[in-house]
Amino acid sequence: MSAVPELRITLAGSERAVAAGTTAGQALEADGRTVIAARVNGEPRDLAHELADGDVVEPITIDSDEGRAILRHSTAHIMAQAVQELFPEAKLGIGPPIENGFYYDFDVAEPFTPDDLKRIEKKMQEIVKQGQRFARRPVTDEAARTELAGEPYKLELIGLKGGASEAAEGAGVEVGAGELTIYDNLHPRTGELCWKDLCRGPHLPTTKVVPAFKLMRSAAAYWRGSEKNPQLQRIYGTAWESKDALKAYLTFLEEAEKRDHRRLGAELDLFSFPDEIGSGLAVFHPKGGVIRRAMEDYSRRRHEEAGYEFVYTPHATKGRLFEKSGHLDWYADGMYPPMQLDEGQDYYLKPMNCPMHNLIFGSRGRSYRELPLRLFEFGTVYRYEKSGVVHGLTRARGFTQDDAHIYCTPEQMPGELDSLLTFVLDLLRDYGLDDFYLELSTRDPEKSIGSDEIWEEATQILREAAEKQGLELVLDPGGAAFYGPKISVQARDAIGRTWQMSTIQVDFNLPERFDLEYQASDGSRQRPVMIHRALFGSIERFFAVLLEHYAGAFPAWLAPVQVVGIPITDEHVPYLERVAEKLRAEGIRVEIDSSDDRMQKKIRNAQKQKVPFMLLAGDEDAGKAAVSFRYRDGSQNNGVPIDEAVAEIVATVRERR
Amino acid sequence: MSAVPELRITLAGSERAVAAGTTAGQALEADGRTVIAARVNGEPRDLAHELADGDVVEPITIDSDEGRAILRHSTAHIMAQAVQELFPEAKLGIGPPIENGFYYDFDVAEPFTPDDLKRIEKKMQEIVKQGQRFARRPVTDEAARTELAGEPYKLELIGLKGGASEAAEGAGVEVGAGELTIYDNLHPRTGELCWKDLCRGPHLPTTKVVPAFKLMRSAAAYWRGSEKNPQLQRIYGTAWESKDALKAYLTFLEEAEKRDHRRLGAELDLFSFPDEIGSGLAVFHPKGGVIRRAMEDYSRRRHEEAGYEFVYTPHATKGRLFEKSGHLDWYADGMYPPMQLDEGQDYYLKPMNCPMHNLIFGSRGRSYRELPLRLFEFGTVYRYEKSGVVHGLTRARGFTQDDAHIYCTPEQMPGELDSLLTFVLDLLRDYGLDDFYLELSTRDPEKSIGSDEIWEEATQILREAAEKQGLELVLDPGGAAFYGPKISVQARDAIGRTWQMSTIQVDFNLPERFDLEYQASDGSRQRPVMIHRALFGSIERFFAVLLEHYAGAFPAWLAPVQVVGIPITDEHVPYLERVAEKLRAEGIRVEIDSSDDRMQKKIRNAQKQKVPFMLLAGDEDAGKAAVSFRYRDGSQNNGVPIDEAVAEIVATVRERR
Repeated sequence: MSAVPELRITLAGSERAVAAGTTAGQALEADGRTVIAARVNGEPRDLAHELADGDVVEPITIDSDEGRAILRHSTAHIMAQAVQELFPEAKLGIGPPIENGFYYDFDVAEPFTPDDLKRIEKKMQEIVKQGQRFARRPVTDEAARTELAGEPYKLELIGLKGGASEAAEGAGVEVGAGELTIYDNLHPRTGELCWKDLCRGPHLPTTKVVPAFKLMRSAAAYWRGSEKNPQLQRIYGTAWESKDALKAYLTFLEEAEKRDHRRLGAELDLFSFPDEIGSGLAVFHPKGGVIRRAMEDYSRRRHEEAGYEFVYTPHATKGRLFEKSGHLDWYADGMYPPMQLDEGQDYYLKPMNCPMHNLIFGSRGRSYRELPLRLFEFGTVYRYEKSGVVHGLTRARGFTQDDAHIYCTPEQMPGELDSLLTFVLDLLRDYGLDDFYLELSTRDPEKSIGSDEIWEEATQILREAAEKQGLELVLDPGGAAFYGPKISVQARDAIGRTWQMSTIQVDFNLPERFDLEYQASDGSRQRPVMIHRALFGSIERFFAVLLEHYAGAFPAWLAPVQVVGIPITDEHVPYLERVAEKLRAEGIRVEIDSSDDRMQKKIRNAQKQKVPFMLLAGDEDAGKAAVSFRYRDGSQNNGVPIDEAVAEIVATVRERR
Repeated sequence: MSAVPELRITLAGSERAVAAGTTAGQALEADGRTVIAARVNGEPRDLAHELADGDVVEPITIDSDEGRAILRHSTAHIMAQAVQELFPEAKLGIGPPIENGFYYDFDVAEPFTPDDLKRIEKKMQEIVKQGQRFARRPVTDEAARTELAGEPYKLELIGLKGGASEAAEGAGVEVGAGELTIYDNLHPRTGELCWKDLCRGPHLPTTKVVPAFKLMRSAAAYWRGSEKNPQLQRIYGTAWESKDALKAYLTFLEEAEKRDHRRLGAELDLFSFPDEIGSGLAVFHPKGGVIRRAMEDYSRRRHEEAGYEFVYTPHATKGRLFEKSGHLDWYADGMYPPMQLDEGQDYYLKPMNCPMHNLIFGSRGRSYRELPLRLFEFGTVYRYEKSGVVHGLTRARGFTQDDAHIYCTPEQMPGELDSLLTFVLDLLRDYGLDDFYLELSTRDPEKSIGSDEIWEEATQILREAAEKQGLELVLDPGGAAFYGPKISVQARDAIGRTWQMSTIQVDFNLPERFDLEYQASDGSRQRPVMIHRALFGSIERFFAVLLEHYAGAFPAWLAPVQVVGIPITDEHVPYLERVAEKLRAEGIRVEIDSSDDRMQKKIRNAQKQKVPFMLLAGDEDAGKAAVSFRYRDGSQNNGVPIDEAVAEIVATVRERR
């Protein structure tokens, strides 16, 4: 370009002169990576965006979070174009990028079939191959209305653009509060208009940039999420920066699907959600009960050793308790509706245990000598979740918290939080999670009670306790509840997903509301500090996390059946029964498979049930007081003396290996 | 008597001739015992009752249940007479005998004071001393109305006598459906009318017969039990066949009062019923939690050993489940009212666990190989009890059943019931109850489902299982629930009270309703037999029974604090801490009393808290690695080597002595 430079822009942190009319794409040409859009003065823009004097320009690459969102958004457009070419009567809803993919909603007469999705995918490949250009075009409301007269839902969005922009955002609507724009898909050679959509953008420069995509499934969805609106058909898809990335994602999905706790729960006969009982209320079958009990027992033992005292409180209470705690003011939506007893008295299922623990603290005078007082309960709570968001054991309507409340003096707080965090992480590791980071939620001054000093001090104590652990510490500024700061422990599972596990919450509110006091060593009455903490969060949810983490293959100490004895023939059943007796005497959970199945089938069954140990026995084993010791991974040691096998199994269980 | 015999009567089983005009009292004169009334042809009558030809006459002695009821009824009359002499404005309500005593209701301007009761008692003694005669006199309704014109409540009773006699019975009203009678109290010498009451009788011959009585307390009570009626003042009293019997009863009351679990629960800081939560919903404090947990743990261990499988089910469910089970048809009054969720769906708190266990049984195909399947749950249920009948932990609105349901083949039923009853009694004995009788509730043909044969067979199996135990077996004919016969275990506690403990209930109904099936060995589909059983009944109630049985002095294995270390001076605290560590390593619950109290006070405190073992240590003990070992009964062994003391404590706890 020989033109005289007319603009000064900032690129990669340094100033540069470029010719007037230079686009963001041109400015970023030299970037070695796949740049698909630009951030200009902080705002995402198309590469075709013309720069102005003073602009600060940064690249958006296809393999960044922002880049993938743009890729997915453009792929949604391509999908909608393909749908309208194949189903000319289809009317457009909205089509945003979402986590790991995108969707687009269509008003069509019939739901899409799997075959339809294949045809749409094929048509999309043609569009990608053509390399149509995404071209941005500002329009007036009036012009947009005329152009999109055949798209009733788009017309509704134009109406929302102004005052109701928040409602529009809530509905996933992509119209900005400012300028209204249409994106045209133009033929790369003829410039002919192939398709268009009302859209804020930005988009890829051309459809050819899409490296890899796949349509996933279709499902019904109400227009703007309301059951009062027409039902549309939503097609979900995914798009990635490379074929490898797409493949990795599909493998991850397959792995997650295999590990889906709802599926494993049924396959392994662990729990169910019977229709007669209702959404989000789990029933634990005997094998699930064994796992849950093993989880609870170990937790209880550790809590006892750590000085926790165990209490029991009811599941229902007069509303008065939740008036006192304030929950009816700010948490009523999350509660089950009341039951009217005794002529007009409202009773509620408890959504939390803390108010009841406070009643125990307050049931008699307390001395500083009793502090820290750590009240623990496996407390089952009930919370109203909309049926749409209920999800297996991870988001249920009834669940049991491993809930403790610690009452201590202000001076005890640093030591208590420090040992608490160590305790929590240590215990999570015992259950097999070992990849953590911590999140510190701090004050939102807009909505919080308590003085600056008290918040600052408590937050600082939490921060110091967190930093001592040597783990990554992520800040969540303003993310605290109104009543105090919080640390949460985030754990990554075997396939890299993050689960929020334990929370440690300081509370400045409830001790006030319940007028909790202790007598200090100087005889004065003082307000205790209150700390809420749940380690599993809920037992049900932790159960699901472990089930998915281990893909059902629980470590031996948690496995519902720890050993299956498999006789080579029926004659060897009594021999194995004697071995089983030795194991049972050590508290090991053993079954002998004396069914009519053949030995190989029995081995397959035990493997399917993910039993950690199989003990096989035939004449040869019986002759030398031995067993053939088979592991879940298929490896096998023959001729292992019985006592040796028993000792190995007992040690593995006892040491929670 | 020289008159010619004109009547033949049957006395003590043999016929006799007596003169016409002979009274029951005259006929029974020769009886050596204190006969106070007679049963003539099965009907209770005054001794003054004139016999007719063919009458069968039996004595009613004062020390029989029937005799005591008559004694108490007459004492109630004496009390009412005394009240009206002292408070001439007092109007009479009703005055029946009740268990262990009697009451009478009065309409008076002011509640009675303790001083009033003393004055009334004194006046009663005068009446007793006088020996007024109880004289029966039939009257017409009209005459009664005239005579009792000043007693508005009595007039109301006369009105109830006819068509509304059932309502009258319900109100404890003593008018028969037949003849109306008035009892006059007549002066022994002058025959003058001292007092009278509308009454069915029978009564003592004279007031002098009353050997011992006492007024207990007064309380407000609504006329005929309805809040819509005027409030009367009720005075409770008791009367006995001898001064010794009265004394024994008062001692028993005192003992029961000392053992009242509500009182001990507060004194020992075990549990409470906070106002904020509501009636019948208990909160277990840490020490109560320890006892409860020890109870549950041992029960669980024994159930595991006995082949029970543990499940967990939610506390709330859609109404649909209880429609299916039929509970909403016949048990709705005992349930909490519904909560409406998800637009019109009724959810209920569960009053029973059985329907949920049935869902688990039915969640997949079952084979005969899996039977007996024994599903166990510590299942907390909620039942609506009127607030008036709620009583501490023994009659609560929420409680946790140690609930199991056994599904077996018909052939397995005898063996299963037999071993079940042995298991139940054995376990109750381990908790310290050892005085039992069994009750067998059999069919009420008016309200029951299932064929004659099936009832007969099941009842016979239950009876045989019961008889094998060699315990007293009491029949409860027609007392079974409509769905099957039942055995219940009744236990007598340390002061002789009977508590219904375990129930073993056969159920012909639910397997049908839930269409439960298993595949028999011949491949056919069969209906399993279902047995409900709870051993404690409810943990809360059993907790209360044990608390009263032991008067708070639980055996060491159940005691919340098993050992208190008491230093002679503060210097000996570290020494005792080392002893405590040894005990804690063995799982013993130890506290060291390092308060500022003096040693003697610490001993008293530990005794008040009913701690089984105290270990005292001073210089002398420390010098020879010993402790002074003190027991709950106040006995003490000095210079016991530490290891010996530890071994004794550990053995006592482990062996549940």
